[in-house]
Amino acid sequence: MASTLYHPPTRALVLGAGAIGTLYGHVIARAGAEVSVVSRSEYELISKDGYQVKSLHIGDSNFKPKHVIRDTKEWPEAAPDLLLVCMKVLDNLDQVELMRPVVGIKTKIILIQNGIDIEPPIQAAFPDNEIISALAFVQVSRVAPGIVEHFSYGELTIGTYPKGIGEGCRLFGQLLEHGGIPGKLTDDVVNARWQKCLWNAPFNPTSALAGPTKTHTILNEPVGEALIRDMMQEVFDTAAAAGHPLPDGIIDQYVQATKDVRPYKTSMALDAQYKRPMETEAILGNTVRIAKRLGVVTPKLDTLYALMKILEADRA
Amino acid sequence: MASTLYHPPTRALVLGAGAIGTLYGHVIARAGAEVSVVSRSEYELISKDGYQVKSLHIGDSNFKPKHVIRDTKEWPEAAPDLLLVCMKVLDNLDQVELMRPVVGIKTKIILIQNGIDIEPPIQAAFPDNEIISALAFVQVSRVAPGIVEHFSYGELTIGTYPKGIGEGCRLFGQLLEHGGIPGKLTDDVVNARWQKCLWNAPFNPTSALAGPTKTHTILNEPVGEALIRDMMQEVFDTAAAAGHPLPDGIIDQYVQATKDVRPYKTSMALDAQYKRPMETEAILGNTVRIAKRLGVVTPKLDTLYALMKILEADRA
Repeated sequence: MASTLYHPPTRALVLGAGAIGTLYGHVIARAGAEVSVVSRSEYELISKDGYQVKSLHIGDSNFKPKHVIRDTKEWPEAAPDLLLVCMKVLDNLDQVELMRPVVGIKTKIILIQNGIDIEPPIQAAFPDNEIISALAFVQVSRVAPGIVEHFSYGELTIGTYPKGIGEGCRLFGQLLEHGGIPGKLTDDVVNARWQKCLWNAPFNPTSALAGPTKTHTILNEPVGEALIRDMMQEVFDTAAAAGHPLPDGIIDQYVQATKDVRPYKTSMALDAQYKRPMETEAILGNTVRIAKRLGVVTPKLDTLYALMKILEADRA
Repeated sequence: MASTLYHPPTRALVLGAGAIGTLYGHVIARAGAEVSVVSRSEYELISKDGYQVKSLHIGDSNFKPKHVIRDTKEWPEAAPDLLLVCMKVLDNLDQVELMRPVVGIKTKIILIQNGIDIEPPIQAAFPDNEIISALAFVQVSRVAPGIVEHFSYGELTIGTYPKGIGEGCRLFGQLLEHGGIPGKLTDDVVNARWQKCLWNAPFNPTSALAGPTKTHTILNEPVGEALIRDMMQEVFDTAAAAGHPLPDGIIDQYVQATKDVRPYKTSMALDAQYKRPMETEAILGNTVRIAKRLGVVTPKLDTLYALMKILEADRA
C-alpha cells in the first residue's frame, strides 16, 4: 500500500495521538510518510504493537509508527517536515511549549483541532512556519488502548492559515489522497472554520448542558430547535462582522442535515458525560469574545457560555 | 400545646403531604386545628404512627393527623374549612381534579407552592372560594418515611389572591402564629411572588443545568454572577411590565444575601440530581410567557427555559 512518491519520504510527527491523530497519521503513513507519534499513556503498548486501525473505508490494518516518544523533548531526529497537532484545545495546556522542541524552520504545522480562532497563538509563536488549519468531519473512536475504529468517511478540510493553499498544505493533501482518504483543500480555511463553528458553538454546549443529550432530543423540542436557530444566527452575524459571511440558507441546511442523520451525542456531550475536559473556550468562548470585540450582540450564546463556565467550575 | 381558641375547631386537609405540607399541617394542628392528610405512598405508616417532626424552632414532636386518606375521593366529612395544597406544580398533574372532591363553598384554598402565576387555573375552577397564596422561605426535608426535619426559621408569606387579606388568610395567619411559626401577611401577594421569582427563575434552572451545582459555584464565576444579574433584570422588567414593580436595589441585595449564606443546592438542582420532576413551567415557563405576552425581551431567560425543556425531554 505504501507509495514511493516522495523521496526522501516526508517525516511526520503526530502530537496528540488520540483517535483523530492516529487515523490521519495512519493515512499518511499508507502514502509513504515516515510517521512517528508522541504517546505518553500508551507508550509501552504502541512501541511494541503499534495501533490497530479498523475502518470501513480503508480496511483494517496495523499502523506501526517509526518512533514512539513520551514527550516532544525526546524527539531523536532533525525537526519533522510535518507536525500534526491533534490535541484538544484546553485552557490549561500550553500547546506551544509542547511543540517548541519539534518545530524546525521548515516544519509545517497542521492543526487538526476544533474551534474558531485557535491559530493566532500558534502563529505568534512560530511566525515563519506555514500553519495549516484542518477541520475533521469524521466519526472515529478509540475503542480500547491502541485500537481505533473509523466509522464514517473522514474528510478533512484543509487550508493554509490565514488564507491560501501553501506548499505544506498541498503536500499534506497529496499524502491524504494517496493514503486513501482525500482531503478537501480550501483557500479560505477561516471561513470553513466559521461554517463548522455555526454548528458546533450551539450544538456542542447545548448537548453537554441539557442531559447530556443527543442531537434529536434538542431538535424535537420546539423551543430547542428555536434556540439552536437563534444561536446559529448569532454565530452567522459574528462571522459576517469578522469578514467571513456564510452562505445564505446555511442555518436551514444545517438543521435539516442534523435531522436527517441518526441522533448522536456531540463530542462535548460525551466529554460532559464522562467528566473529561471540554473545549469550551475553543468552540464557544472564542466565538463570544470575537462577537463582543466586534459589537455583535449574542445574548443566547453568552448565556450558554456562562452556563458552561459554571459547569466546568462545578467539575473542578 | 393545642389551643382551644377556635370553637368548633378549624378542619384542615393537607394535599401533598411532603416536607412542607407536613410541617405546616403540624403547626396549625398545634394551634388546635383538626388536620387530616392525603398520603398515598405512606398511608400505612402515617395511619399507624403519624409523622415525626424534628424542628430547631418548635421542638421535636409527633403529628397525628385526624384522618389519613389515600385519595381526595375518600374524604369522609363535609368539605374542610382549609385546604392546604402543597404539591409540586407539574404539567402532568391535574391539581383541580384532585381538589374538586374536597372543595366546598366555604373552603379556603391555600396554595403553598413555588412559581409565578400559578393561581389562575385554581381561581378559574373555584371562582367563589377564597384563594390564599403562600410562599415558603424554609429549609425542611423529608429525611425518611414519616420523618421531617425543619432546619431554618420557616416563615410563610401569605395573602389573599389576587389582592388583600381575606377572612381565610387572617384565620390561617392566626393558626400559624398560635402554632409557633408566625406567618407574614401581605395585601399584595402577587408582588411577593414576583420577588421570590426574581431569585428562583434564574437560580433554580441554572443550578439544575450546570452541574447540578451549588449557589456559590454559580456566583464565584464572574460570567456566572453576570448571567444571574442579567436574568434577574429580565424578571425585574417583566414584573414591572406586569404591574408589579420590585424595589430598587433588590438584585444587589439578593446576590449579596446569597453570597452571605452557606452554599447550597436549590430544590431544582436536587430534583435534577435525583431525576425527579422539576417545576420548570411554574418557576420559569410562566415567567417567560408573561414576558412574551407583555413584549418584554428576555433572551437569557428564554435560553435557560429552552435548555430546561431539552433536559426534561432527555429525562423522559
